[in-house]
Amino acid sequence: MNEDGTQHRVVIVGSGFGGLFAAKALRTAPVRVTLIDRTNHHLFQPLLYQVATGILSSGQIAPATRDVLRYHRSLRVVLAEVDSIDPVGRTVSTTEIGGATATFPYDSLIVAGGAVISYFGHDEFRAAASGMKSLDDAMYLRGQIFGSFERAESEDDERRRASLMTFVVIGGGPTGVEMAGQLRELSRRALQRNYRRIDPAASRVVLVEGGSRLVPTMGDRLSRLTARDLGRMGVEVHLGAMVTGVDDGGVDLTRSDGMRQRIESATKVWAAGTRACPLGEHLAATTGAALDRSGRVQVEPDCSVRGYPEIFVVGDLMSLGDLPAVAEVAMQSGAHAARTIRRRLRGDTAVVPLHYRDLGTLAVISRFRAVAKVGPLRVGGLVGWLIWLVVHVTFLTGFKNRFAALARWTISFVGRGRYERALTGRWVVDTGPPPGT
Amino acid sequence: MNEDGTQHRVVIVGSGFGGLFAAKALRTAPVRVTLIDRTNHHLFQPLLYQVATGILSSGQIAPATRDVLRYHRSLRVVLAEVDSIDPVGRTVSTTEIGGATATFPYDSLIVAGGAVISYFGHDEFRAAASGMKSLDDAMYLRGQIFGSFERAESEDDERRRASLMTFVVIGGGPTGVEMAGQLRELSRRALQRNYRRIDPAASRVVLVEGGSRLVPTMGDRLSRLTARDLGRMGVEVHLGAMVTGVDDGGVDLTRSDGMRQRIESATKVWAAGTRACPLGEHLAATTGAALDRSGRVQVEPDCSVRGYPEIFVVGDLMSLGDLPAVAEVAMQSGAHAARTIRRRLRGDTAVVPLHYRDLGTLAVISRFRAVAKVGPLRVGGLVGWLIWLVVHVTFLTGFKNRFAALARWTISFVGRGRYERALTGRWVVDTGPPPGT
Repeated sequence: MNEDGTQHRVVIVGSGFGGLFAAKALRTAPVRVTLIDRTNHHLFQPLLYQVATGILSSGQIAPATRDVLRYHRSLRVVLAEVDSIDPVGRTVSTTEIGGATATFPYDSLIVAGGAVISYFGHDEFRAAASGMKSLDDAMYLRGQIFGSFERAESEDDERRRASLMTFVVIGGGPTGVEMAGQLRELSRRALQRNYRRIDPAASRVVLVEGGSRLVPTMGDRLSRLTARDLGRMGVEVHLGAMVTGVDDGGVDLTRSDGMRQRIESATKVWAAGTRACPLGEHLAATTGAALDRSGRVQVEPDCSVRGYPEIFVVGDLMSLGDLPAVAEVAMQSGAHAARTIRRRLRGDTAVVPLHYRDLGTLAVISRFRAVAKVGPLRVGGLVGWLIWLVVHVTFLTGFKNRFAALARWTISFVGRGRYERALTGRWVVDTGPPPGT
Repeated sequence: MNEDGTQHRVVIVGSGFGGLFAAKALRTAPVRVTLIDRTNHHLFQPLLYQVATGILSSGQIAPATRDVLRYHRSLRVVLAEVDSIDPVGRTVSTTEIGGATATFPYDSLIVAGGAVISYFGHDEFRAAASGMKSLDDAMYLRGQIFGSFERAESEDDERRRASLMTFVVIGGGPTGVEMAGQLRELSRRALQRNYRRIDPAASRVVLVEGGSRLVPTMGDRLSRLTARDLGRMGVEVHLGAMVTGVDDGGVDLTRSDGMRQRIESATKVWAAGTRACPLGEHLAATTGAALDRSGRVQVEPDCSVRGYPEIFVVGDLMSLGDLPAVAEVAMQSGAHAARTIRRRLRGDTAVVPLHYRDLGTLAVISRFRAVAKVGPLRVGGLVGWLIWLVVHVTFLTGFKNRFAALARWTISFVGRGRYERALTGRWVVDTGPPPGT
């Protein structure tokens, strides 16, 4: 209840990890919650690369948000785009999928808008190299990847065939490493005996990283282990290689020694970076909050916006100390904002800073091999992979999805199958540029 | 081997049941096989309605054709559109997905091009009522169905909300019956507790049939049983109702007593009929073969074209006696054509007519209830459903898909979940008319 006797209204923007964990932490609170997102699903982004490579279906990593939260009787899910936030009038204005506009008043606001792909000022790269942030991205890449093998099979020109069978992944963080490893598994194992004129195992997977190390946040030893494991699988790892051009035909690199190189490739995956979604700039303009260089909103230690204690920014849109834009931070900051609201409603106005517990970082390299940084532990190989398995099964939302993902992984990793390879009319490789261009 | 010592070349057009069963029956034959299809998958069409309603993923009913046939070393799969067939020069001309054209000479040809949705001369209905023949169709309908509930939840106008919550299925054959039953299951069970402003169970599902009976091929008793079971579930069954208009806003009916009626509905499913694909007309023009009134090619008793014993037409594109255009006929005629080719290569030129064994017809009404005509047997209820289950698990291609479908069915029928509800940017309800328009 508010002081005037009306029920306290919480609006949450975004149904990613930040928004979902905030909603869950408010389940038994005496508040009315409105959760607004432009998609109807909660997306488990860390497994998007498995949708792109045909292991999982879109539904398996994207349960309907309103189904996940169906027992939260005081919570309403709204499928809409957020147009603006009025921090003085305390309202959020939206456009719903039917085109109607609506305004949602709030007493507390949790903004968990997340991040978008950043091409670091080279937006012209976008049309040639899809990012991997949404289901649309993953479905588009699925069409590109399997469509490229199809086209290679019927291509008579040797150079064009080589280009179709070259996959360049740009960015050596966990996303890029996992995508590169999985592309190699796909071409080396999953597509065995499928083609008659090409040998998918002869395709090239190139991983390009501008810095000097892969997965740099995991420490020097794991960086080297990752590069070694990928190399043994046949992934060509280019470190210290700056991407200076991306077009339909390929990628231009400038190496740290000044050498320039062109890699002809039909399929490019952009995993080089993200930045905060445009809601960050909007909040900066309306609340005066400062942004960091990734466009994230700098918040107070309790995740609130300076001068607007009722507005919280969490997840990838939040800049707090040196916390990274990862799922774990989103979960904990979302839940923290919710707990702060609950405490205030009990009359406890003490400012409790977010105390982030770093549960670690993981990256799968191949089936049965992963690198894992968990607390003081730094492990690779099978042990790392088992940790990956346990963590991902634990955090996948919903028992059914856990069971289904386990079943698919058994089939894909122990066997060699890739279920989700069906290309439909709209997703075949040559239907145009990636979504959002 | 051909008489001149070269290897016998078989071209198969179409990777549906007819084409796939022909390919399988040629596995150990001394022939080179080329299988041409415009999609990369073998589609299990009888379960498309489960993809549209979110039970199964697209990959679960559409394994990659080249993966299904990977052990057929002498078989090549080509992803291409067939442009023309030259029965004199014995070639098939295609355009591949990259845009390149190719010509495939054949010694024997099996045309299994299948059927397309027929609007019975009312092609203007197409833009407002999607058929259900391809994965694209099913994905489009999935977006329409789940998108309509989303839009209804945020719709303030009562009449528009009622229209969004009205689903009209046109056509009372097995496809229409299964779709109507499943839409009711969805609204009554699967979406429980998902919405706050609408009650999905209050949505209307209307099944419209021009004739006087549902599933007319299954006999009078099962027709009545089907209508009764659907009625008890809350499906509004309109028999003897001719569809005279379909537009964005709804459906116009003229009943057998002359009464006209308008049903306002945002989501219309066209399950009223199919006709042979355009390859039928092309074959008629080039070989002089006669077409029946569904545009199917009339063939000799051994499925070959009169005057062109080396050309076989099988499946939904074939007109032979009074055989219906169903999956079972496609499987048996495809395999029969393949066996005829094998016999001829052994020097046996006797004409062996296709002897069709009717294994029956099935239609699911709800979880645990189906109607089944199997040989002399006519059963409904749970027994019918168990027969449905065994048949569909048996005929789903590949062990993995059987296992996965069983797992999903357990979740969907024993539980209430619908996994595959994620709407992506391109599939949300208001992105435009259905595919193919």
